[in-house]
Amino acid sequence: MALFSSLTPVFIALLCVVVVFILKRFQKKESESDTSPNCTVKSRPWVDEDLKDDTEINTKEEDGDWAESEEDVPHVSYTTTRYPADVMLQRSQEFYALLNQRRSVRFISPEPVPREVIDNVIRTAGTSPSGAHTEPWTFVVVADAEMKHKIREIVEEEEEINYRQRMGDKWVGDLQRLRTNWIKEYLDIAPYLILIFKQTYGIHASGKKKTHYYNEISVSIACGILLAALQNVGLVTVTSTPLNCGPQLRLLLRRPANEKLLMLLPVGYPASDATVPQLTRKSLDDIMVCV
Amino acid sequence: MALFSSLTPVFIALLCVVVVFILKRFQKKESESDTSPNCTVKSRPWVDEDLKDDTEINTKEEDGDWAESEEDVPHVSYTTTRYPADVMLQRSQEFYALLNQRRSVRFISPEPVPREVIDNVIRTAGTSPSGAHTEPWTFVVVADAEMKHKIREIVEEEEEINYRQRMGDKWVGDLQRLRTNWIKEYLDIAPYLILIFKQTYGIHASGKKKTHYYNEISVSIACGILLAALQNVGLVTVTSTPLNCGPQLRLLLRRPANEKLLMLLPVGYPASDATVPQLTRKSLDDIMVCV
Repeated sequence: MALFSSLTPVFIALLCVVVVFILKRFQKKESESDTSPNCTVKSRPWVDEDLKDDTEINTKEEDGDWAESEEDVPHVSYTTTRYPADVMLQRSQEFYALLNQRRSVRFISPEPVPREVIDNVIRTAGTSPSGAHTEPWTFVVVADAEMKHKIREIVEEEEEINYRQRMGDKWVGDLQRLRTNWIKEYLDIAPYLILIFKQTYGIHASGKKKTHYYNEISVSIACGILLAALQNVGLVTVTSTPLNCGPQLRLLLRRPANEKLLMLLPVGYPASDATVPQLTRKSLDDIMVCV
Repeated sequence: MALFSSLTPVFIALLCVVVVFILKRFQKKESESDTSPNCTVKSRPWVDEDLKDDTEINTKEEDGDWAESEEDVPHVSYTTTRYPADVMLQRSQEFYALLNQRRSVRFISPEPVPREVIDNVIRTAGTSPSGAHTEPWTFVVVADAEMKHKIREIVEEEEEINYRQRMGDKWVGDLQRLRTNWIKEYLDIAPYLILIFKQTYGIHASGKKKTHYYNEISVSIACGILLAALQNVGLVTVTSTPLNCGPQLRLLLRRPANEKLLMLLPVGYPASDATVPQLTRKSLDDIMVCV
């Protein structure tokens, strides 16, 4: 009893330490589950792994002018075509009229599209500016029917999960109506799928990772130029960002770990019976402020 | 002494709890300072406030097709101009040749640019697709000389901080040479500055915040289309992303709290003695993969 009595302080101390650790661990678990709403769904290790490897913490990015790394490159003189004011105005109106006809089209014709045209629109996208001239983009052009179908299966499976989650139990009896939302026939039908990957980092000669600052913004700008190039030749697409499918599609297409899927564009002529939602665009006054 | 002896277990227990808390807190502080490399510099509350209000947690974003919210909008039939294959090919080559002449140009002429041309290039950027058709962009066009100068002061001050931090002590004696890196004369000289803000959220009629999914990607795509529209009329710009200046520039331009600066583009004709770094672009084989 004397022995037990002399050990009491030690027992109590240990007990307190254990209790505090358990409490801390509990708090941590709770906050983890707050930030990952999908964790109650089936395990999808490829998604988690990919999301963990995110080198794009905005607050760490460098500031300013994108070409600072070009400091030591020799300069050459630059000129560009100078149009008279009336020609400039006419060109600006015509380009606006062309781009204003662009719509996201989900009904794509299976007719073949000249391959060289696809090459040229991708060349055009590749003229985009990028942070420190890293050109952090890979355009994967899929024409193979079997590969297109595999892509469709992955995208539809993820879309179904998303819809079911979002709808919850109250819609469980009405899934047939919603089914149209995750069926992406155009992924089989479009003659080309263009999957645009952002290269989140590069590899130095030393084997060290080199962060690509602003890679997502750079690749998105390139996508804007790609959309303009497609519209210019009379082809249509629909902009989609299959976030959770990215890791699976990356593995399917054997892209390296530094590449993350940013966008998936089915490309072709519009189907003869194509329709689009009757939407309007904001007016110039709603998007422009003059100072 | 008997009293002290009987209290010993309580003292030890309290001591242990205090030690564990201190250790935990210390660990937390350490990890916080890891993620904010700038925290030792002078306090900049507007930056911190703005960075805190970041509604763009990628993992929370919705998946897939950008127009799901359009489900209940009536559809109308859609057609687009159909060009013969040889015309398509020619148009794709010409557009590539036009865009391939684009370069980031820092030497901009002060000559005035027709205002209607600027209106049209911004109209064109506004045709960009956006997540759930939110059109989450505001283009602030600054022509006022005094305002341009205030913008320059803010940008240069931040750039100087960035350069001094990056260079560290060893360059302290050689700042004069580096000074050219944070001097942005073009911010005074260019006839127009276009500041592009992303609207990170909207406000429902109920006053509740409505997250704009993919707002940064959407606005970056619009910037890509804007760059193409500028190139099409013979104007030049340089893509810059003044991250830390965003909050100050937002206040200067009286933009609401839901808008964050994404890009700042000085726009004009190139100066007659303009130069650009002698850079090459990746070849098609380096950016395209065919499956």
